[in-house]
Amino acid sequence: MSRALPQRAPAVGLPESVTIYEVGPRDGLQNEQAVVPAEVKAQFVRRLLDAGLTTVETTSFVSPRWVPQLADAAEVLADLGELGRGRDRPVLVPNERGLDRALESGVQAVAIFGSATETFAQRNLGRGLAESVEMFAPVVRRSQEAGLWVRAYVSMCFGDPWEGPVPVEQVADACVSLMDLGCDQLSLGDTIGTGTPGHVEALLEALERRGIGVDRTGVHFHDTYGQALANTLTALRAGVRVVDASTGGLGGCPYAKSATGNLATEDLVWMLDGAGVRTGVDLDALVATSRWMAQQLGRPSPSRVVKALGGDVADAGDPVQ
Amino acid sequence: MSRALPQRAPAVGLPESVTIYEVGPRDGLQNEQAVVPAEVKAQFVRRLLDAGLTTVETTSFVSPRWVPQLADAAEVLADLGELGRGRDRPVLVPNERGLDRALESGVQAVAIFGSATETFAQRNLGRGLAESVEMFAPVVRRSQEAGLWVRAYVSMCFGDPWEGPVPVEQVADACVSLMDLGCDQLSLGDTIGTGTPGHVEALLEALERRGIGVDRTGVHFHDTYGQALANTLTALRAGVRVVDASTGGLGGCPYAKSATGNLATEDLVWMLDGAGVRTGVDLDALVATSRWMAQQLGRPSPSRVVKALGGDVADAGDPVQ
Repeated sequence: MSRALPQRAPAVGLPESVTIYEVGPRDGLQNEQAVVPAEVKAQFVRRLLDAGLTTVETTSFVSPRWVPQLADAAEVLADLGELGRGRDRPVLVPNERGLDRALESGVQAVAIFGSATETFAQRNLGRGLAESVEMFAPVVRRSQEAGLWVRAYVSMCFGDPWEGPVPVEQVADACVSLMDLGCDQLSLGDTIGTGTPGHVEALLEALERRGIGVDRTGVHFHDTYGQALANTLTALRAGVRVVDASTGGLGGCPYAKSATGNLATEDLVWMLDGAGVRTGVDLDALVATSRWMAQQLGRPSPSRVVKALGGDVADAGDPVQ
Repeated sequence: MSRALPQRAPAVGLPESVTIYEVGPRDGLQNEQAVVPAEVKAQFVRRLLDAGLTTVETTSFVSPRWVPQLADAAEVLADLGELGRGRDRPVLVPNERGLDRALESGVQAVAIFGSATETFAQRNLGRGLAESVEMFAPVVRRSQEAGLWVRAYVSMCFGDPWEGPVPVEQVADACVSLMDLGCDQLSLGDTIGTGTPGHVEALLEALERRGIGVDRTGVHFHDTYGQALANTLTALRAGVRVVDASTGGLGGCPYAKSATGNLATEDLVWMLDGAGVRTGVDLDALVATSRWMAQQLGRPSPSRVVKALGGDVADAGDPVQ
């Protein structure tokens, strides 16, 4: 395969540049079976930065009891040093205890993880929606006092495995509650991957009406139903400029049957490279990083681009018609 | 998972209905390792029609020497009887000999398979681009004389494994050459799956300038680089109303390294169902058909929707944040 591909052709309604919010080291690795050593995690982040990614969520200070894969968050950040600090190197904090640990590690950006549905809040946060907002309030207030950048994830925005459909206005309510705490950025999570393009447009419009513009909104699609890239394209055309993705398609959601995980960063970069949208990412370096991480995890990358660029095209001589 | 999902929300610029041109029995099965018996092939077509698909390419009259998987084309059509006839039940014919066999089987629609590149023409058709058009001329003329509907596939429209990029005007030239023979419909093939949305728009615009409107143009995307659904969405927004897809994601292209095959019909239907675009397809019946075919082939379906709808959501109790 000539890497003269994809051919460049600007697409209608796409911006000049997009910020890829890389979640592989956190959302990816926390959902992998294999637990990789802290130095491999730090090396992963370094390689992602070397490949041109600017915004990388490095780890999570959730309780090791819930996510043993990321129990070494402090160790990873110590290894990264200055590279792990900065407003574009957030860490996930579930509560004030997590924030304390994050502050001890010297981070300058955090992310909280809310829910659009009552059931998921109860199951994932151990409390109702209203109570979870109360829990996050001091986390955000103290983060702001410490000068941190704060992102609010909202999960189950496009469907819930227990509740089924989730009304757009209900999602908007949850988003407003968290953003009203003073968060800098919102990330709309299609946790189970059931969203479709019109639904993406409807939610972005509802948020706009409620005062949360696309300039403060990122999108986080899972590819469980194969919709992630089409939904991303739709969000970009609606003005979104921050897209979450996971290098190599690492991770998934244990609540979604046969989850295929996050949108693969490589598949996103392929589309954006084709459209001439700047991301700063060197796709070949990223693919090499995914191959290296796949070796660490002992299984192939689910990214289609990583698979496709796995080698030269077989020079098969048989007709295919 | 509640099948109340996907939630319905109309998407900007999509039509009220789309014709899915189902290629599973031909493009899908010809590229599978396993060869299934003629009666299973006929049963597959019947199940696809029962699931609501209207347009199904049933088989191919290419030489059994090249595609032994479909050597039983006449037998499949005999089994199908009236269901295999009609202007929405095309068969692939590579040349006049293939047309002879197709006519003997009583078909009322055929498809020819051209190329956008010289190299692929040489390798797949055994002659240059100009010579291949000469070869197709009597096939189309005789088809018209017999009152058949004729489709023209053009492969390698968005990149070629040997030549790399393929200029849009070169593709348009190839399309015009075939359509000028008198074909009723064009199908733009992204045979190696490297196309991206802007490229899709550019090619459709070039064709429009050359007199081939979106009303005569279908799209045929492979998902090798994960771009198929985003490209399809783009084509629909540009006015295309015929989309090729393969139930269960059957098949692939042996020339594309790690080919992941055609766009899965289920993944397309999920998106269109979400947007409220009519296809006539019962998604659950289609998924059941893919599971049945996967059993015949002895391997799981690569369709993400088929995987995701494989059973109920595991009621896992662990947090995922």
